[in-house]
Amino acid sequence: MWVDPYPDFRPEKPLFVCILANTETARIPGISAAGKSPEMTDYTPAADAELVETGSVFSISEPAMCPSGAPTPAVLTRASMLLTGIPCLFINAGLNIRPKISFIELNAHPGNDIRKELAVPDAADIYRASADLGRKLSKLSDFVMIGESVPGGTTTAMGVLRALGHNGRVSSSFSDNPSDIKERVVDEGMKASGISFGSLKNKPLRAVECMGDPMIAAASGLVDGLNVRTILAGGTQMVSVLSVIKAMGLKRDVSIATTCYVVNDKSANFREMTELLDFPSYIADPGFSNSDIAGLRMYEKGEVKEGVGAGGAMLAAAMQGYSQKEFREKTEEVYRSLFTIS
Amino acid sequence: MWVDPYPDFRPEKPLFVCILANTETARIPGISAAGKSPEMTDYTPAADAELVETGSVFSISEPAMCPSGAPTPAVLTRASMLLTGIPCLFINAGLNIRPKISFIELNAHPGNDIRKELAVPDAADIYRASADLGRKLSKLSDFVMIGESVPGGTTTAMGVLRALGHNGRVSSSFSDNPSDIKERVVDEGMKASGISFGSLKNKPLRAVECMGDPMIAAASGLVDGLNVRTILAGGTQMVSVLSVIKAMGLKRDVSIATTCYVVNDKSANFREMTELLDFPSYIADPGFSNSDIAGLRMYEKGEVKEGVGAGGAMLAAAMQGYSQKEFREKTEEVYRSLFTIS
Repeated sequence: MWVDPYPDFRPEKPLFVCILANTETARIPGISAAGKSPEMTDYTPAADAELVETGSVFSISEPAMCPSGAPTPAVLTRASMLLTGIPCLFINAGLNIRPKISFIELNAHPGNDIRKELAVPDAADIYRASADLGRKLSKLSDFVMIGESVPGGTTTAMGVLRALGHNGRVSSSFSDNPSDIKERVVDEGMKASGISFGSLKNKPLRAVECMGDPMIAAASGLVDGLNVRTILAGGTQMVSVLSVIKAMGLKRDVSIATTCYVVNDKSANFREMTELLDFPSYIADPGFSNSDIAGLRMYEKGEVKEGVGAGGAMLAAAMQGYSQKEFREKTEEVYRSLFTIS
Repeated sequence: MWVDPYPDFRPEKPLFVCILANTETARIPGISAAGKSPEMTDYTPAADAELVETGSVFSISEPAMCPSGAPTPAVLTRASMLLTGIPCLFINAGLNIRPKISFIELNAHPGNDIRKELAVPDAADIYRASADLGRKLSKLSDFVMIGESVPGGTTTAMGVLRALGHNGRVSSSFSDNPSDIKERVVDEGMKASGISFGSLKNKPLRAVECMGDPMIAAASGLVDGLNVRTILAGGTQMVSVLSVIKAMGLKRDVSIATTCYVVNDKSANFREMTELLDFPSYIADPGFSNSDIAGLRMYEKGEVKEGVGAGGAMLAAAMQGYSQKEFREKTEEVYRSLFTIS
């Protein structure tokens, strides 16, 4: 089965929400592969949103991709949106570069480098605004998936997990996870904030403020406001959101969905963390080893892995009965319309 | 009956959308009473949205009101949202001052003074973005009401009506309609655009571009994208949107809802225009003659009349079975929490 476990529910009004944010943390050399260079990662969320929505990018000359050439997971997410017809709303939770398509504005600021004292000074405001939005969306939708595009977001995720006392090992958009750099950055960040491992386990929003990124604040707030079935669509970044929800004691119908690439990442501990935090998880495998497109086969080697809610988007396609092969072919079609294959 | 005709439908997923925009046209002295002074009208849409959403205003020191002291119709709209619990989404269709609450960003620009060549240079872009949004909202809601807050908007509405060949006489937030000024401004605007009465009757979007405001582009686009029952909540500004829809030949399930104050305005011709354009209309009477609040009784004398979807908001309350008295009392409660009564 290409999605495990196979989802047996059929929502009437599904909704996909994609939270976009920047953090200065992504500018630290070697941290993020979500863009051709650290500076270009500023443009990645905007370009991802444009790609999912329109099949083209406007904010940069070509879609975001890893330095290796593997394409952004927005390609997978667009494939699913085309197949399923699920509406997608984008949220600006703190961007340096705003997309040239419609989006929901939370009046949030981009995150700081976590090595500064405060990473997300407006975490509480973001949380509140997002919770208000969630309450509204609950009246319209009966099933909400929450994806994200935040370059550098696994490092901030690690920071929050550590502040909450979890030995969460996070994944990476690089096939070779720069875990050493992340550990060092997180250590420096904790020192700058005057905190230590687990010292904020009872203050989850403070952990986001000190060590997180604006997406973590927005996603947690959204879950708070939503009282419908909710799936966090992402890898270890969304595990960090689960850790915040758990620490807050929020009782919501929340699961997590990600790709097989995150689950198979030995440098991370997705399964261990979701079991520890006690949330159901769904794992999706796009079957890219069967693809004749080199950029997609790079996923099988551990490039990119996840993002823009790609794992959850596959789950959504599976929920509507699309097969792995149909999904892969639609993804190839989206890829071909974007990139000239040499 | 306080709403005529009484609405006999009960949507499952109603949604209220409020389109916010500024136009330089509002800065022309004597045109708009939607603010204490022409300059202050820039703040009115943002403050209206804040008031409907939170019961407070952040962008200015006190809620928008007429120079006479009559309060913004946002007070009525908030009363209805509190009674009905209908979710309200705000759209920035081109603001100088953006609200300090969440909103949907269309990446639109504020409108120019219609005495310039182009009033809404990005009308086509706004229309398209709004239609895309409408298609998404159709998948979530089965009933959409569209209100607006656009100071100066009756003059731009008149401009569009004239360009489309309608002798539409528009209402005013002043009890004494400054029709002479509006006629003169519209005449100057038509000259500047090189058009004449009815010369754009087959080019409705061009009419908005030359003579309208960004809200008219956004509301028309939204109606295009929505394929669910839609009610334009407003007076003669929404009549102008109807005229655009009609000229486009759009076949949609659209009605209009407004207050008795607009219908009773002898300087305007709401009934004549809706009958001519052949759209059903709903008229709501808040019964403010029975209120002991002087600011609300001013509505009975023709101050303010309509705005922020107040007429439609009353219809929504009536649809859920609330009486005129219950609505009026809730409005008084909202008013009292905002203003100190001397």
